[in-house]
Amino acid sequence: MADKVLVYSRFPKTMMARFAERFELLDTGGKPTREVFSADQLGGIRALLTAGGSPLGAEAMDLFPKLGAIVCYGTGFDGVDLKAAAARNIAVGHSPGANAASVADIAMTLMLATTRRILVADQYVRSGDWAASKQSPMMRPQAGMPGRRIGVYGMGEIGRKIAARCAAFESEVGYFSRTRYDLPYQYFPTLEALADWCSVLMIAVRAGADTQHVVNADILGHLGKDGYVVNISRGSVIDQNALVAALTDKTIAGAGLDVFEKEPHAPDALTSLPNVVFAPHIGGHTLESHVAMQNCVLANLTAYFEGKPLPYQVKSA
Amino acid sequence: MADKVLVYSRFPKTMMARFAERFELLDTGGKPTREVFSADQLGGIRALLTAGGSPLGAEAMDLFPKLGAIVCYGTGFDGVDLKAAAARNIAVGHSPGANAASVADIAMTLMLATTRRILVADQYVRSGDWAASKQSPMMRPQAGMPGRRIGVYGMGEIGRKIAARCAAFESEVGYFSRTRYDLPYQYFPTLEALADWCSVLMIAVRAGADTQHVVNADILGHLGKDGYVVNISRGSVIDQNALVAALTDKTIAGAGLDVFEKEPHAPDALTSLPNVVFAPHIGGHTLESHVAMQNCVLANLTAYFEGKPLPYQVKSA
Repeated sequence: MADKVLVYSRFPKTMMARFAERFELLDTGGKPTREVFSADQLGGIRALLTAGGSPLGAEAMDLFPKLGAIVCYGTGFDGVDLKAAAARNIAVGHSPGANAASVADIAMTLMLATTRRILVADQYVRSGDWAASKQSPMMRPQAGMPGRRIGVYGMGEIGRKIAARCAAFESEVGYFSRTRYDLPYQYFPTLEALADWCSVLMIAVRAGADTQHVVNADILGHLGKDGYVVNISRGSVIDQNALVAALTDKTIAGAGLDVFEKEPHAPDALTSLPNVVFAPHIGGHTLESHVAMQNCVLANLTAYFEGKPLPYQVKSA
Repeated sequence: MADKVLVYSRFPKTMMARFAERFELLDTGGKPTREVFSADQLGGIRALLTAGGSPLGAEAMDLFPKLGAIVCYGTGFDGVDLKAAAARNIAVGHSPGANAASVADIAMTLMLATTRRILVADQYVRSGDWAASKQSPMMRPQAGMPGRRIGVYGMGEIGRKIAARCAAFESEVGYFSRTRYDLPYQYFPTLEALADWCSVLMIAVRAGADTQHVVNADILGHLGKDGYVVNISRGSVIDQNALVAALTDKTIAGAGLDVFEKEPHAPDALTSLPNVVFAPHIGGHTLESHVAMQNCVLANLTAYFEGKPLPYQVKSA
């Protein structure tokens, strides 16, 4: 009989197809587990598959007395209470780096779309305003990429790929992270100093309790009126109310957002703004990225059910 | 008295400000010259400022008996009849390379916006469809940049900058141009072979009579159903009717277009398509690119009125 895996978050069926070939999936569809399955059904569950951003704390873990592995689809694991997992001898796995290029590329896409105002441009052509030679203040020339100062917050695999891409656009790259690395980019000792220096702040930091609302009204003020913020990490890193205020009163010029505080919800005060480009958390959402993430999930689950350590295990906090 | 320069095309006033400090501008606003100025006023005109894509043939040149210089704002000069100019001893100047990075960057912006479907993504968030968990077939994962085959048609300054940027995205780069260069990209001897190989065809060739409708139904067929075409050169390079047909019947997957056959007009059959991202010919439209192009225009006009050769002169055909 196939090993059972409980699917804790809501995933499209197509993303689960390869797992369903190897395991018996109990799919909650993202609903509270106890609404979908009985205690009896849950008793034998030894492994969970989850999206790293979905909250998964001690109480949820205790629904599964035999739980030994929580496997996150993707790089992030910020929703998982690592201490609670460690206390219960539950291994936590993820897919490190599998989606790094795909996420870095959505960061570049959002930056370019925002700074070159591609939504406005597209609408200007489609509406016929261009043909009618109508004025469009939003279409005034803006600074381009050569010489632009890009500040990367977080220098993991995604941050490095963003930096390498920006360098190819002839931009200057600076970064702030807890650790200073041997990299050909200017290091800033604080996020504030990076925000003062750069005109695009790329948020690529690993999210967690220590990064909650780190990009706040103060940092946005340092970024300034020609500044853009691009977030492909987690919504929690930005104080979203402060961002709405900064975008509304032109404290900053614009934003590109793939992530939000309460997904899949983006408040109307945000989505009504013309100087923002939105994406529905599709950073890791490419064919090859999904294959790579699925490979990590399969390797983690297979090893676990064979009694071996997870090959892609999150180190306990 | 300041030297007179006739402004032959329609330009925003802000783009003319630096020229107006040095020259007396006779601005047609893009209207037929004789509708705006009398023969008397035109008699003394020795220099024209034009957009390279505006048609400017023998008849127009003959409106100005003393004309000695046609200065194009930008890189292109495809609208100027070079033979007619040479026959009249009129020097033709342009701004080579001044906007190359800016144009390459709009090519990258259009490619990423199209392949990552950023217009659909943005609308999915803004409309509330994401929050409502509505299905969106357009949002299915697509191939990303790593390993993607990018075909660059034309390897001038813009083509090289596109290639360098694509390489940083971990894509494979191939190219076709009349000349094979010592470059680290795969060379294809025909456009057809390049279209067969690549999944994104980037049109960066210098436009002219020899490139008219070179990207036709046949080439689009070779590009194929997973293929995208991005045009930042001139609208004339693509057979626009064939492109509309290929996009409508899904012969190709999508397109990113900054240029059109009859600007500023884009036909409804094109602008109603969801799988295209449009821009109103803003490739060279960044602050630093305008400054660089204006520097070339000023250098050309200043040299001309001092009786010197144009520093940025187009070589006669």
